[in-house]
Amino acid sequence: MTVVKSTLPEQALRVTGSALQDTLVDLLGLSLIGKQAHWNIVGPRFRSIHFQLDEVVATARNFSDTVAERAAALGVPPDGRPETIAATFALPGAKDGWLRDTEVVDLMVSALREAIGRLRERIAATEKPDPVTQDLMMSITAELEKQHWMFQAENWPRDDT
Amino acid sequence: MTVVKSTLPEQALRVTGSALQDTLVDLLGLSLIGKQAHWNIVGPRFRSIHFQLDEVVATARNFSDTVAERAAALGVPPDGRPETIAATFALPGAKDGWLRDTEVVDLMVSALREAIGRLRERIAATEKPDPVTQDLMMSITAELEKQHWMFQAENWPRDDT
Amino acid sequence: MTVVKSTLPEQALRVTGSALQDTLVDLLGLSLIGKQAHWNIVGPRFRSIHFQLDEVVATARNFSDTVAERAAALGVPPDGRPETIAATFALPGAKDGWLRDTEVVDLMVSALREAIGRLRERIAATEKPDPVTQDLMMSITAELEKQHWMFQAENWPRDDT
Amino acid sequence: MTVVKSTLPEQALRVTGSALQDTLVDLLGLSLIGKQAHWNIVGPRFRSIHFQLDEVVATARNFSDTVAERAAALGVPPDGRPETIAATFALPGAKDGWLRDTEVVDLMVSALREAIGRLRERIAATEKPDPVTQDLMMSITAELEKQHWMFQAENWPRDDT
Amino acid sequence: MTVVKSTLPEQALRVTGSALQDTLVDLLGLSLIGKQAHWNIVGPRFRSIHFQLDEVVATARNFSDTVAERAAALGVPPDGRPETIAATFALPGAKDGWLRDTEVVDLMVSALREAIGRLRERIAATEKPDPVTQDLMMSITAELEKQHWMFQAENWPRDDT
Amino acid sequence: MTVVKSTLPEQALRVTGSALQDTLVDLLGLSLIGKQAHWNIVGPRFRSIHFQLDEVVATARNFSDTVAERAAALGVPPDGRPETIAATFALPGAKDGWLRDTEVVDLMVSALREAIGRLRERIAATEKPDPVTQDLMMSITAELEKQHWMFQAENWPRDDT
Amino acid sequence: MTVVKSTLPEQALRVTGSALQDTLVDLLGLSLIGKQAHWNIVGPRFRSIHFQLDEVVATARNFSDTVAERAAALGVPPDGRPETIAATFALPGAKDGWLRDTEVVDLMVSALREAIGRLRERIAATEKPDPVTQDLMMSITAELEKQHWMFQAENWPRDDT
Amino acid sequence: MTVVKSTLPEQALRVTGSALQDTLVDLLGLSLIGKQAHWNIVGPRFRSIHFQLDEVVATARNFSDTVAERAAALGVPPDGRPETIAATFALPGAKDGWLRDTEVVDLMVSALREAIGRLRERIAATEKPDPVTQDLMMSITAELEKQHWMFQAENWPRDDT
Amino acid sequence: MTVVKSTLPEQALRVTGSALQDTLVDLLGLSLIGKQAHWNIVGPRFRSIHFQLDEVVATARNFSDTVAERAAALGVPPDGRPETIAATFALPGAKDGWLRDTEVVDLMVSALREAIGRLRERIAATEKPDPVTQDLMMSITAELEKQHWMFQAENWPRDDT
Amino acid sequence: MTVVKSTLPEQALRVTGSALQDTLVDLLGLSLIGKQAHWNIVGPRFRSIHFQLDEVVATARNFSDTVAERAAALGVPPDGRPETIAATFALPGAKDGWLRDTEVVDLMVSALREAIGRLRERIAATEKPDPVTQDLMMSITAELEKQHWMFQAENWPRDDT
Amino acid sequence: MTVVKSTLPEQALRVTGSALQDTLVDLLGLSLIGKQAHWNIVGPRFRSIHFQLDEVVATARNFSDTVAERAAALGVPPDGRPETIAATFALPGAKDGWLRDTEVVDLMVSALREAIGRLRERIAATEKPDPVTQDLMMSITAELEKQHWMFQAENWPRDDT
Amino acid sequence: MTVVKSTLPEQALRVTGSALQDTLVDLLGLSLIGKQAHWNIVGPRFRSIHFQLDEVVATARNFSDTVAERAAALGVPPDGRPETIAATFALPGAKDGWLRDTEVVDLMVSALREAIGRLRERIAATEKPDPVTQDLMMSITAELEKQHWMFQAENWPRDDT
Repeated sequence: MTVVKSTLPEQALRVTGSALQDTLVDLLGLSLIGKQAHWNIVGPRFRSIHFQLDEVVATARNFSDTVAERAAALGVPPDGRPETIAATFALPGAKDGWLRDTEVVDLMVSALREAIGRLRERIAATEKPDPVTQDLMMSITAELEKQHWMFQAENWPRDDT
Repeated sequence: MTVVKSTLPEQALRVTGSALQDTLVDLLGLSLIGKQAHWNIVGPRFRSIHFQLDEVVATARNFSDTVAERAAALGVPPDGRPETIAATFALPGAKDGWLRDTEVVDLMVSALREAIGRLRERIAATEKPDPVTQDLMMSITAELEKQHWMFQAENWPRDDT
Repeated sequence: MTVVKSTLPEQALRVTGSALQDTLVDLLGLSLIGKQAHWNIVGPRFRSIHFQLDEVVATARNFSDTVAERAAALGVPPDGRPETIAATFALPGAKDGWLRDTEVVDLMVSALREAIGRLRERIAATEKPDPVTQDLMMSITAELEKQHWMFQAENWPRDDT
Repeated sequence: MTVVKSTLPEQALRVTGSALQDTLVDLLGLSLIGKQAHWNIVGPRFRSIHFQLDEVVATARNFSDTVAERAAALGVPPDGRPETIAATFALPGAKDGWLRDTEVVDLMVSALREAIGRLRERIAATEKPDPVTQDLMMSITAELEKQHWMFQAENWPRDDT
Repeated sequence: MTVVKSTLPEQALRVTGSALQDTLVDLLGLSLIGKQAHWNIVGPRFRSIHFQLDEVVATARNFSDTVAERAAALGVPPDGRPETIAATFALPGAKDGWLRDTEVVDLMVSALREAIGRLRERIAATEKPDPVTQDLMMSITAELEKQHWMFQAENWPRDDT
Repeated sequence: MTVVKSTLPEQALRVTGSALQDTLVDLLGLSLIGKQAHWNIVGPRFRSIHFQLDEVVATARNFSDTVAERAAALGVPPDGRPETIAATFALPGAKDGWLRDTEVVDLMVSALREAIGRLRERIAATEKPDPVTQDLMMSITAELEKQHWMFQAENWPRDDT
Repeated sequence: MTVVKSTLPEQALRVTGSALQDTLVDLLGLSLIGKQAHWNIVGPRFRSIHFQLDEVVATARNFSDTVAERAAALGVPPDGRPETIAATFALPGAKDGWLRDTEVVDLMVSALREAIGRLRERIAATEKPDPVTQDLMMSITAELEKQHWMFQAENWPRDDT
Repeated sequence: MTVVKSTLPEQALRVTGSALQDTLVDLLGLSLIGKQAHWNIVGPRFRSIHFQLDEVVATARNFSDTVAERAAALGVPPDGRPETIAATFALPGAKDGWLRDTEVVDLMVSALREAIGRLRERIAATEKPDPVTQDLMMSITAELEKQHWMFQAENWPRDDT
Repeated sequence: MTVVKSTLPEQALRVTGSALQDTLVDLLGLSLIGKQAHWNIVGPRFRSIHFQLDEVVATARNFSDTVAERAAALGVPPDGRPETIAATFALPGAKDGWLRDTEVVDLMVSALREAIGRLRERIAATEKPDPVTQDLMMSITAELEKQHWMFQAENWPRDDT
Repeated sequence: MTVVKSTLPEQALRVTGSALQDTLVDLLGLSLIGKQAHWNIVGPRFRSIHFQLDEVVATARNFSDTVAERAAALGVPPDGRPETIAATFALPGAKDGWLRDTEVVDLMVSALREAIGRLRERIAATEKPDPVTQDLMMSITAELEKQHWMFQAENWPRDDT
Repeated sequence: MTVVKSTLPEQALRVTGSALQDTLVDLLGLSLIGKQAHWNIVGPRFRSIHFQLDEVVATARNFSDTVAERAAALGVPPDGRPETIAATFALPGAKDGWLRDTEVVDLMVSALREAIGRLRERIAATEKPDPVTQDLMMSITAELEKQHWMFQAENWPRDDT
Repeated sequence: MTVVKSTLPEQALRVTGSALQDTLVDLLGLSLIGKQAHWNIVGPRFRSIHFQLDEVVATARNFSDTVAERAAALGVPPDGRPETIAATFALPGAKDGWLRDTEVVDLMVSALREAIGRLRERIAATEKPDPVTQDLMMSITAELEKQHWMFQAENWPRDDT
């Protein structure tokens, strides 16, 4: 028996629900990685990036709530349990212990870049099944691309240049 | 080479650092479990408990930040990464999918009760090594015991009575 | 003589104006129904749903203003007069007198479901004529689908299950 | 069986309940008319009166809530459904389409004047049966008389002078 | 020697002062009873009514301050000492220990109903001696009647129905 | 030709208009006297009464605005010009130059007492012609009686006792 | 015996004290005139100028407080009593009764222009005796010149052009 | 059958529960005494102490809520009913009628001193059974000792010196 | 060497970057034109339109920031220097000196209409290359179309009608 | 025919008006340059200076409004159109494309230094013609000198040292 | 090598820098003295003056920050270290231990009077070298003269009168 | 004769009073040193550390107030006069003139480390004599240890590593 009846047809719901669940894990993982770096960063840019990371965390937490409630609204129970995140989180992670500020910036650039790539695929995938969910994916992308730029700008000239 | 020099002697630091790291995982896990229930709860008390869970989450998130920064302040890099939480989280967790409101209340009562028991052990353990950390453990305990009472009060008469 | 010149061509304007006018009536009607239930609800969940209904009303009122001003912005005078609402409102309504809390939840689930179905048709209809209006329709849909889920979650297990 | 027991004797309740129900319809109708004019007004005083109308709407909405909850508090279920408003609203209404600013001011002066006249009758009628309700009627009258003055002041010299 | 000279003649002052003193005790007692229930309530509606009781307490405390200062303003020293409340409080009280949520709702309905009955007598009694005090009595009555309705609505269908 | 048409009949309007105009002058005069004392007070209670006077001034200014706009709302143009205040202000005034704190308290007690006496006459006079205006007079009286008590309490034991 | 000892020499004090007292009367008078117009204005620009006048009143009241306290700070008791304002106010005043909006704008332009001319003389007069007071005069002038411009801009094309 | 299961062992709970209940009565009594003095104080320091008493009342009310909810959290139903306060309140009380400002200061010094003495005993008594409760007792003591100092400072030189 | 790596492919980036740069200039120019009119407007609607223009300026400034940061986020350095605006601004501009209110309204209607036309082209152009940027273009269009309507409504009946 | 009559004599007005117009262009140009750098800055101090630049922009925008309205208040229509800024802006500008953080700091130091030098000349020039305008010039100078110091402090040790 | 290049010529800078450094020490000393009195005051005016002193402290702290940053802005490193204050503070200080309220008022009157005298000398000294700094000195003087008056008013009749 | 009677026995008071007085001097000195560095810092991290120092200053000022009032509350007059700070301040101080950002970070690390060491001794010393004061010492330690960590993190890799 269905608990929450969807307003989407079944096939559309499968694609959309999967896009939302994957985004939920990306965002929850990003919020944990961001806090990890917020606590462990050291180096001359400590204070500046310590605060910037809390903006990433706030963004990731707020969107994770919106994404999970959108899944529920469509009738798909979201899964954000620790074991699920650990098992399915696919973005670059943080190493153990103190993190040099330059390392943190590199980590955020690559984690955000990976997240954005995945989101852009979901924008394409959800366009037909559910443009309302697509619109949410676009909002998240816009915000993460802004963070992505700011960490890149912070990171220039890069060591590999 | 030490990155952040501790203001505690080595033995005291070991006990205190371990108490803080374990508390960090309890709180981060609790915040994820709380959100999971916040999103998946169904039943006639949906709205009331949906909001109550967000208070647990806010409490757990705020204290996790304080606890992690206290560890860093003592020279111990805190570890709140997804894989660490999944591997070491020891409180009762949530099952997959929609959760009946009565199940959620039961879950919160038992998870909070377990968390409180572990905190009371750390209050005893940190008294001598670092009373400043002990004071923080007592603040967390006071708040979780308040939440523990409110879920119990919500849950009465219990099925097993 | 045209009072407000439209930025849309005539055919596109006809479709878009009609979608906006119909949405306006749905939202104004929903706000009146929501208040009716807010005042007349009785039962053990009185307080919880009394407040939830005011969120529906606030949502419906705010979006009705945006929708009506969007119509005006496109050069179509919106019509939200009592007689127009009474004549064209097509969602399920409320019966006279006190309303049991379970009845109210059922009413909101069905009224919101109907409103969402109509909005999804307008999302499809306005995509080509005016994507700016389509974007507004999607925002309203997202919000009503969230309310729809919360009343369903509140309503489970249903009597017919 | 009575749902909400009144604190008034039956005869007093009949008079008071009827005064409240009539006031509710006047205020809800006024709020819809006010919004209609807010959206459709054109002319050199557009902006000034556009905002003034929103104050009328806010006043009418807030008092309609107080009036309906007062009826409920006395044990009379209030009726603010679209069909009820359309059937019993007795103040001057708005015509369809764009409205010239001078027309809007005239409309508001006459609608408010009519509403005030009806309220003053209810002040007299409720004095003995329920002075608490009478006090509410006086508060509404004071506020509408203030709006009535401001639209008159705006409207001078009048065309018929 | 008079400390604060009254603006009322002696006979009017006696009636008015007595009405204010009795109201003060009703309100202070109500605020204590409300807090007692706020702390001791258990049952599935715990959270919802726990908060509703704090609104009763806030209302009772604020009006008790206004009433006591009005007595002082008229030259009558108000008496809100513990022994005075215990000796003269005449509304239904709370029993010792945990209170089931249904009991709490019943208690509030009967305590508010009794308080309202007494206030309506004072509205009649103060009309001639001091209409300014009568106006205050009417404001308190309006607010308590609103609370009375909400607890009744919460309490339906009643066990005795 | 009438600029603002009254909602009151002519005879009622005359009594009400005159009560409002007299109250306006009392309040504007009181606000000027209050500021005069606020600036010129000296003595050990300087700071305490300096602030208390600003509360009297704020009260008098706010009510003067309400009173004047109520007169306008009824169709009577209010007169608060300097020459009108000087010519018709009938409460005790302040002498020139620095004012000892005890003098200021005496002045406020007598000015407020006189103002209250005049207001109580207007409460009686306006009851029949316009209960809406009477209600405003009662609100002003309640507030001034509170100020009257506080200055008396401040002033005890009095020199003449 | 001096109550408040001045920080200025006697001759400088005389000039400065007189400039402050004259400014005080101008500002208090302006605030009364501004309110008079705020209440009595009629015409199509009623609402717009009704609010603009309240800004003039707020400006005049705030500066009157600063000016009077500056006089006191220098040891000169300020005089803002009704009879003093009536006797020494030298700016153009308002006539009795309703005021047409165009009349109000003319009145404010001429009253502000006169006030500014008098302030510019005091800027010159206080430069040597007390540059601190001169600085205050300049702040008032800047603000009144801004108001003066806005009423002129409102008033164009003028009838005499 | 236990309603709320305690996180403390039985013997520890008995001591802690008793300390909390006694503190609850002290604080509720103090809040009532403080309001009594707030309303009945007369004398030249009326305004200053009138406000200071409201700070004592706010402190006592807030801590009484925390203390009662801590008792509930530990499984002990708190008792703050009028009859309980009257029967067990053990601090110095207020006499009937107007209170001279010097009397009020003396009363607050002695009531606070007595309350602090009792709290310091409970700090000792709860250290072992429940350090979390002890921490709360210390917070209350710190705040009351601050109030105790301020009333003493206000009261010097004392009559008995 | 690329400073900020784009998340878009090259061809898509070219189209999107150009749409963003052109929009940036339109918005910065509009903000300057809006302020110019805000300062130089004269006529009976001075105050009303003076404020309305500041809303246009705030809208234009906020969106210009979002647009420029979106360009940067995509790896395209935005250009908002004075010489660039002057050289490429293509909307109708303001003439030198004072501006009659009717002229200002005409200017805003035509400048906004032109800006909207250009934005609608960019909505079409960016749909495929970058729907995230398209979404931003739609938000700007919605807001400018609202302003466009309000200036048209203000401007009716037009001289050419 | 004069639109806004000046309160200054003609010769004084010419000097003052010219000083204000030149300052307006400096500030508007500075606000555009500041935003350009805010968007295009890259390097390890990105975040810190990105925010500092927004403070410069806010300062420049606020003062530009005050300066332009002061010109209008004196009867001189201010000119802040794109073409005027481009033609008369005389401070150092920004080059096209991304800007290294060290370049940005150098640019701001030199632009602010130049602006301050020009303002100090205007302080001297306006002292006699209009001390009210001079006072405004001094306020701007104080604020820009503070920004000038902070960018210099940020920039030390300089490359040329 | 100069760290911060001044915008003032050398001779002007010497005078201005010295005036700022001396003012800094006066204000920091005043803030410490004010806090010392805030903590140690006893007597019947304890509460009133306890708060007034915190306003002096806030004023002194805020201006000390502005003064020190103005020195830095001009290229002069300010010196506010404990040893510098102790060595160069030249205003009357506080004695050790509790301070009677009358003593405190006397102390503040004389310390403020001395500070004002020194500031007025610096107003004269900085007029030519740096009118921007002179303007700051005048702002400080205005504020301290206001505090000086209020303590004098509080202190009357003085013992020596 | 004792001014403020202590709630502690004499021996306990001596230890506690001395711990509080020493902490007061540490905190006031720290606040002055922090401001000195806030004003004189230069280098590429100027802005970031400039703000961080103001947080240290705010922390030190707030705790100094709490500590001094706690001393007074226990009957010990606190001493925070300039000469006392200069004579007894024992933490590392700042040198004269501009301070390189790296020097500032080193200074704060060593000053905070020293302050924490002294506080930890006082935590041990006050445990028995006054646990309420000990609790305050622990709060200060927690906060300073957090600042200590952040300056260390900022300072890594250190020159001596």
